[in-house]
Amino acid sequence: MNRRNFFKNGSLFALGTTLLNPFESAANEFDLTSFHKNKKAKNIIIIVSDGMSIGTLNMTDLYLNRKTGKGSNWLQLYKDKKVSRAMMDMASASSIVTDSAAASSSWGCGYRVKNGSLNIGTNGEEYLPIWQKFQKAGKMAGCVTTVPVTHATPAGFCISSKSRNSQEGIAELYLDLKFDVMLGGGENYFSADIRKDKRDLYKEFKDKGFTVVKNKAEMWSSDNSKPILGVFDKEGLPYSKDRESSKELTNSIPTLAEMTQRAIDKMKNHPKGFVLQVEAGKVDWAAHGNDVAGLIYDQVAHDEAIKVAIDFAEKDQNTLVIITSDHGNANPGIVYGKEANDNFDSIQKYTQTNDWILNGIGKETSVAQVIERIEYANKILLKEEEAKEILSYYTNIKLEDGLYNPRHLPLKVLGDIQKKRNSVGWISTDHSADYTELAMFGPGSQLLAPFIKNTDLHYLMLQAAEIENKF
Amino acid sequence: MNRRNFFKNGSLFALGTTLLNPFESAANEFDLTSFHKNKKAKNIIIIVSDGMSIGTLNMTDLYLNRKTGKGSNWLQLYKDKKVSRAMMDMASASSIVTDSAAASSSWGCGYRVKNGSLNIGTNGEEYLPIWQKFQKAGKMAGCVTTVPVTHATPAGFCISSKSRNSQEGIAELYLDLKFDVMLGGGENYFSADIRKDKRDLYKEFKDKGFTVVKNKAEMWSSDNSKPILGVFDKEGLPYSKDRESSKELTNSIPTLAEMTQRAIDKMKNHPKGFVLQVEAGKVDWAAHGNDVAGLIYDQVAHDEAIKVAIDFAEKDQNTLVIITSDHGNANPGIVYGKEANDNFDSIQKYTQTNDWILNGIGKETSVAQVIERIEYANKILLKEEEAKEILSYYTNIKLEDGLYNPRHLPLKVLGDIQKKRNSVGWISTDHSADYTELAMFGPGSQLLAPFIKNTDLHYLMLQAAEIENKF
Ligand SMILES: [Zn+2]
Ligand SMILES: [Zn+2]
Repeated sequence: MNRRNFFKNGSLFALGTTLLNPFESAANEFDLTSFHKNKKAKNIIIIVSDGMSIGTLNMTDLYLNRKTGKGSNWLQLYKDKKVSRAMMDMASASSIVTDSAAASSSWGCGYRVKNGSLNIGTNGEEYLPIWQKFQKAGKMAGCVTTVPVTHATPAGFCISSKSRNSQEGIAELYLDLKFDVMLGGGENYFSADIRKDKRDLYKEFKDKGFTVVKNKAEMWSSDNSKPILGVFDKEGLPYSKDRESSKELTNSIPTLAEMTQRAIDKMKNHPKGFVLQVEAGKVDWAAHGNDVAGLIYDQVAHDEAIKVAIDFAEKDQNTLVIITSDHGNANPGIVYGKEANDNFDSIQKYTQTNDWILNGIGKETSVAQVIERIEYANKILLKEEEAKEILSYYTNIKLEDGLYNPRHLPLKVLGDIQKKRNSVGWISTDHSADYTELAMFGPGSQLLAPFIKNTDLHYLMLQAAEIENKF
Repeated sequence: MNRRNFFKNGSLFALGTTLLNPFESAANEFDLTSFHKNKKAKNIIIIVSDGMSIGTLNMTDLYLNRKTGKGSNWLQLYKDKKVSRAMMDMASASSIVTDSAAASSSWGCGYRVKNGSLNIGTNGEEYLPIWQKFQKAGKMAGCVTTVPVTHATPAGFCISSKSRNSQEGIAELYLDLKFDVMLGGGENYFSADIRKDKRDLYKEFKDKGFTVVKNKAEMWSSDNSKPILGVFDKEGLPYSKDRESSKELTNSIPTLAEMTQRAIDKMKNHPKGFVLQVEAGKVDWAAHGNDVAGLIYDQVAHDEAIKVAIDFAEKDQNTLVIITSDHGNANPGIVYGKEANDNFDSIQKYTQTNDWILNGIGKETSVAQVIERIEYANKILLKEEEAKEILSYYTNIKLEDGLYNPRHLPLKVLGDIQKKRNSVGWISTDHSADYTELAMFGPGSQLLAPFIKNTDLHYLMLQAAEIENKF
């Protein structure tokens, strides 16, 4: 059918469905709403991409579309009109630009707290975190993440603490609270060899009845009768792109989607239901590092976890799936120019992240080796002066600071060098105040308004599950 | 009522409305949808913020909220659940990053065309632009903008042309097509003194029956019996902030809201209805210039035009109002940091744009005068080396390129200097591929799906108005 003749043949409202697809929302929205109305969410899965600016969602969707012909699962839910959407204001008690601790706490306790603190009010009040509320209501509760399980985003749902930085202490709190499944990184906070107090938290978790797993095979073979603690790396897990390019890592470290599947399998038959937080935590770290391969492929990992959750929820019919981000970071975007398409597509050829590239360079590395390494990882040929600029950061002539950059690597410098070839720009190496994107699927999604404050989400989760806020 | 006791007193669904506000969407959405269902849009007003990244919407909302206690009219429509929303993919036929000509054409003719062209297909096909379709259906049609009325965004609704750059030719096409109201800048393309061919288009428009107006007073005193051409400046109109700070400009140049009101008044009593495009065109120019005062205050001007349109549409009940942007630009955002709130609030004290600052500097300006000028305009004190860096661009030691920067002014340099004081960062001085925000109010808004392609909007407008696409 010729689009020019769109309305030629007869009534406006008796057209073929394919062409009319974009305009059919009226009926569908109503169906979606009435379908879920007054229906209780037995389970809740919230899937957070930490530090995902809207440009990250956009670039990942474009990347997938141009590579595979199919965009992201997240935006497919919009195209299929399966979800309700909102913009969410994530400001904290101390700033219009939140950190992940205050962001997670706003959902975790329903109050805005100061940046850096976890469910501790501005006057020191200790709030009960939402996963504990659900535990008290008889539900199972868990978290899976690509950063330490003791990191800000999972911690904000699980515990109260004056500082997000006491990750050893947070691991101890988890021991007492006995959540049903905790999977991610964070060996540094559990291992007797590394903890300052030499406590062997792995042993203590086992003594408390946990199965402790340390690689993908152990994760899959663990049974569902006990709570599971899975710790797969010292700090965060490897970036998805670096994992994909290494047989060893692919064999030993689970993906976010696999951890999500494992957590659902563990909890799905619990009579009173479950709550699960899934976090793509290294999307934030990649944005802090202006690391485009880190960013896009970890956002793809988030997107694959969405599929696992939605596939479960579509069958289950009793699960609210919440998909969102806790704040913007670096506001990346594809910049206009004749070569924008080709430049952006060149990212498809990247085999390693900038984190991998720069961590493999040292004082002793030669200019030629830098050029060779980046050619291997990005299929681009650096100019000598660009390689020299990078090397100058290793001889302490120059220093780059930043969260998640303890080695002061020239992450921003490399991002700027790549920008000329991949057309991706960044405003900074830190969080932004952008309102975040929020989508909901399933029972409870009808409660969402088009613009909400972060704290509203706390109450929405309780209301969707019909849990009284009596604690 | 204590939020902690939110669900304590009785049934979940019998709570006070204030607290439950964020969760009431189910009922409201259905009301909105059923209210408009099968109701025809007699009038359409589309209000475009050209080059508005999501961060621009966010910063403007935060700016207004922090200054006045009330956020933007745009997001208030979300809070009040009065609109449907979508994400819109604005890619052109030639690039994932569109220009304004291809963007406007996608809405104007329902096809993706190459960047730079106006309603001309990739094989040279000339498409009939949507405002001409509505004219043929008996409706009045007009455009108001803060850039030349011959610029890409209005032109994409009105005419077909191989190049957006032939603005003199576009002015001639307007003469033949006799739209009912055209208000904006563009003296350069109408005046016999400036046009290359010395044609006096003002006289020709008058001979054709137009009232030609050149300042605010004339605009208001023109009567409604004739079509109106209003041209208020040589190229674009002054930035809102510079206009506000000048009595002369305030007296002579209308705001976007005033032009919108004038256009509605002119066309609202037409028995067959009207279509009107409103464009905040200099939001894009400000983003190209990393000019935060230009950006935020022109976005506020866009927001005030939204109020004019919605106020009319709420009374009229037959008007579809479409609010959107044609592409991202520079992806600005407020960057994390201890001083983020104070830094961002310091923009409230700016009295002039960077465009004003830099156009008032020349080779002959001293370092002290640069410091003084920026202190006057921004209430910040530059270091000497910063002022010297700016001055170096005037002695042709350095050059900055960029669209809307014919004088090669150091716009990016000044933006970077301000960033340290106002915490606002930019990824570039050009457009981005970000999907844009789209909201609809009134009859036809029920047709909107949560994710659409730019071309879908063309067909949606026709369908909302029940205009057959027979041309
Ligand atoms: Zn972060
Ligand atoms: Zn532009």
